[in-house]
Amino acid sequence: MHSALVIGTGLMGTSVALALRARSVTVHLRDVDVAAVRTAASLGAGTPQAPAGAVDLAIVAVPPPLVGRVLADVQAEGVARHYTDVASVKAEPQNDAVALNCDTSRYIGGHPMAGASRSGPLTARGALFEGRMWVLTPTADTTTETLNVALELVALCGAVPVLMEASAHDRAVALVSHAPHVVASLVAMGLEKAEERAVSLAGSGLRDLTRIAEADPRLWLDILSANAGIVADLLEELGSDLEQMILGLRAMAATDEAKRGSGAEIVEGMLRRGVAGRARISGKHGIQPERFEVVTVTIGDQPGELARLFTDADRAGVNVEDIRIEHATGQLAGMVHISVGQGLADRLKHALQARGWR
Amino acid sequence: MHSALVIGTGLMGTSVALALRARSVTVHLRDVDVAAVRTAASLGAGTPQAPAGAVDLAIVAVPPPLVGRVLADVQAEGVARHYTDVASVKAEPQNDAVALNCDTSRYIGGHPMAGASRSGPLTARGALFEGRMWVLTPTADTTTETLNVALELVALCGAVPVLMEASAHDRAVALVSHAPHVVASLVAMGLEKAEERAVSLAGSGLRDLTRIAEADPRLWLDILSANAGIVADLLEELGSDLEQMILGLRAMAATDEAKRGSGAEIVEGMLRRGVAGRARISGKHGIQPERFEVVTVTIGDQPGELARLFTDADRAGVNVEDIRIEHATGQLAGMVHISVGQGLADRLKHALQARGWR
Repeated sequence: MHSALVIGTGLMGTSVALALRARSVTVHLRDVDVAAVRTAASLGAGTPQAPAGAVDLAIVAVPPPLVGRVLADVQAEGVARHYTDVASVKAEPQNDAVALNCDTSRYIGGHPMAGASRSGPLTARGALFEGRMWVLTPTADTTTETLNVALELVALCGAVPVLMEASAHDRAVALVSHAPHVVASLVAMGLEKAEERAVSLAGSGLRDLTRIAEADPRLWLDILSANAGIVADLLEELGSDLEQMILGLRAMAATDEAKRGSGAEIVEGMLRRGVAGRARISGKHGIQPERFEVVTVTIGDQPGELARLFTDADRAGVNVEDIRIEHATGQLAGMVHISVGQGLADRLKHALQARGWR
Repeated sequence: MHSALVIGTGLMGTSVALALRARSVTVHLRDVDVAAVRTAASLGAGTPQAPAGAVDLAIVAVPPPLVGRVLADVQAEGVARHYTDVASVKAEPQNDAVALNCDTSRYIGGHPMAGASRSGPLTARGALFEGRMWVLTPTADTTTETLNVALELVALCGAVPVLMEASAHDRAVALVSHAPHVVASLVAMGLEKAEERAVSLAGSGLRDLTRIAEADPRLWLDILSANAGIVADLLEELGSDLEQMILGLRAMAATDEAKRGSGAEIVEGMLRRGVAGRARISGKHGIQPERFEVVTVTIGDQPGELARLFTDADRAGVNVEDIRIEHATGQLAGMVHISVGQGLADRLKHALQARGWR
């Protein structure tokens, strides 16, 4: 790929542009918002000038509801040989493209699984997609040539391509992203009017659970709007499970012993299924969570404590797989949870103790 | 405090015992499970021998449903001058204690907000409570002397005391811990039977959301059983909000434009309330999240990369407030998100770039 046109210079479009520029692709930028194009260009994402002829690939980086319309327009202009988009839902844009008589043989949908918590070109960075999954959703007649150009785009951005049908993609992201996002928002909502004293007891579990609820509501409204039906279906399933759970808990609160027992059975069964479901997404590199061991170290809040800790961990010759830092409200000290490979925790623990860590 | 009796040598009891031993308190251990006492004693948590006379404080560290019964028994024996417990719910044990004619003037409820994801003495550690909140729930007639001994216990364990009424405590933990735990389990449950390809798209948001669903179901059954009614009430409120959200999403999926608009309004309103609720528990040291800035660095998976990174961050003279490491499935590279104080991100960024980090 030698040349590309990025249409829509928000977070995603500008990040793609920066990644392509870093790999010496000529990038042209276009946006209805002139200020956004200027910002993206000043970040080094490419030139605001229109290309002289057709570029190799046009990347439509506009909100999901607009993808079909914009694709139809730029195809009518003939700005590129191949077309893709980066919207986080895929069926609706594809249906729109068909309805608007786009050339779907030259188009393939795309969804890089990265960065959606803030928006705008200023938050863009070329490394946004490194190591991330990038789902590609071919239409019924996408040509192999178009697919290959899209695969090249994914490779240039350092991402990992995954091919899926548009509707399968939308069901999958509804399950692993959209519906959970809504649930996190609902739980966080429950804290809005709560007493300060109650809120002050919140721990890292609740903070982790609600982290995604921090994201920009406007952005998520666009995402949810293009996948609303599927997300609603999933939330209804969750609602039935929730009702079951409530029934179980009510039975557990009963005075009748037999009733309490049957309630406990329901609740425990659901908690166990939760453990089983969670096990499917734990760990990294596809490794199961039980392959890791955790060493917990207490640190002060001085600059350099972490550097010292990791230098010491490094000297022990143990590779750190993951880290979680935990601070209690109102306290300066923190706990650092260091995940290491199976069988390495003791070695790390002894090495750190020998260097004075607790 | 010179002497203590820990009744129940699971994770909590043994951790309290270890903390007290580290501060030179004489600790006696008791458990119906002889092997558990032996394990705790071998960890240095105290002696399995019964005390010769009454100890200063007896710490009842048994599951919530058993606290009242055990308290009545040990008070009848006269093993201690003062009594507390460490159960994660407080109203039911207190009610049980009253119903069983315990001396409630010599008893104060306690709940250290720490470590509940695994159980057993082997996972115990004296530092478990350091910097954590430790809620104390006096009865209507707890003496000041008993309260002071409990405050000493909390101080010896390095925790931060918070006084609350038992029922207020239970409502608070239902809100910030028990109900969210159930919700995380329900979301995780939804992954149990999902297609592998869908699950493979899961990102760090979903992993964080469902982390607490990994915990031991038996342990959580005990916790929930003693607070089942309140948790069910909260989940019903969540259920109503969920229904509202589903209605909003269904409207957003409608063909009628006005209907879509009103659906979007409902959904956006709830997302915004989620952002507001979440903001109440973000950050550490009670500092609001907007006081932090995040610098993101790409690292390889080599031993020493993190140590190098933190040494370099340290050289920049910037205090690291928090860290999050993110790995994509199937990839060796990772992203490290470093939170630093307001206005320090640029300094850190330039210092790290000068040392070759991206």
